[in-house]
Amino acid sequence: MNEEAISTFRECNVNARFTPAGDEVRKVEPKVDFVYPAVPFPSKRIFGAMGEERIQEMVYHHHALLRKSAVGEMFPADNAAFEAAVLKTADFFIEATGGPSVFTSQYGHPALRERHFRFLIDERAREIWLMMYKKTLKEIAFPKEHLREFWSWIEPLSIRMINRRTGFEMPKRYPFETIAHEFGL
Amino acid sequence: MNEEAISTFRECNVNARFTPAGDEVRKVEPKVDFVYPAVPFPSKRIFGAMGEERIQEMVYHHHALLRKSAVGEMFPADNAAFEAAVLKTADFFIEATGGPSVFTSQYGHPALRERHFRFLIDERAREIWLMMYKKTLKEIAFPKEHLREFWSWIEPLSIRMINRRTGFEMPKRYPFETIAHEFGL
Repeated sequence: MNEEAISTFRECNVNARFTPAGDEVRKVEPKVDFVYPAVPFPSKRIFGAMGEERIQEMVYHHHALLRKSAVGEMFPADNAAFEAAVLKTADFFIEATGGPSVFTSQYGHPALRERHFRFLIDERAREIWLMMYKKTLKEIAFPKEHLREFWSWIEPLSIRMINRRTGFEMPKRYPFETIAHEFGL
Repeated sequence: MNEEAISTFRECNVNARFTPAGDEVRKVEPKVDFVYPAVPFPSKRIFGAMGEERIQEMVYHHHALLRKSAVGEMFPADNAAFEAAVLKTADFFIEATGGPSVFTSQYGHPALRERHFRFLIDERAREIWLMMYKKTLKEIAFPKEHLREFWSWIEPLSIRMINRRTGFEMPKRYPFETIAHEFGL
């Protein structure tokens, strides 16, 4: 896909000139909202380094932070339901990072964007999700040699869950280079 | 823009196969949500046939229907504020159909998508807006010779206001050919 060739809404603003109606119909070109960036899914190396239990702990840690965050109401208030949701998400992370098929064997294709439609996820909710992951990766001492690969996956992946737009801006990118120093890298 | 060359999310579903992690990172291609179709803005003919007062009446009629609809809460409950909102919208329709610059002289570029970000507009809200317009066009006896031009504008235009997605489907199209019979055309 030639991203440069695709028109987005970004140029719209109240200071632009509005073309008045003329003698004939005037066609305004097709547009897209924005291009959801490519997602580099991780290799098996992450599961190899972490194993099932540490991945579960990571996902639990992240969800505990999310629950206390501004998007906390998206998660079940009931503790048993919350734990079940965490385990389901952990199953996804286990499988996607190279572990056994514990997610797809139970639930089918992750279809992450589809499964998130019932939640209202705007650009800010995605930022919170991602920043809580950054905090998690620090707090659980995620293996440094695999940080770039993991982050470079979840950062664009999180953009794909956005289903409510509140502005024209492309969701902010956080390349690993911009956060590496926070991990002493 | 070559719409065929752009990948969308439409193929995602829980029955598809999920590629397991391998020895190396696996890149999933960029995608767009959907392509907002071209919008054929009307010529001056519509204002020529309708004039300022009938366009105001049309917009008022439409808004009275919207106010009683499932999206009624998006509009001001206060009557004076509601009338002011209707007049502002009417100014847009007057100018866009070939009348004087009554909108841009007061408010700048219509920037319709931008101005609608503060409202949560999903595919269903757009359908209601459009169906209430169809009802309006019947009830005010919009001039038949200009119906195709007007409808072919507002139908794709309404898609551009969508800022909340609840599914993968491209918003439903309603080409004039599919509604013409309702107007005896």
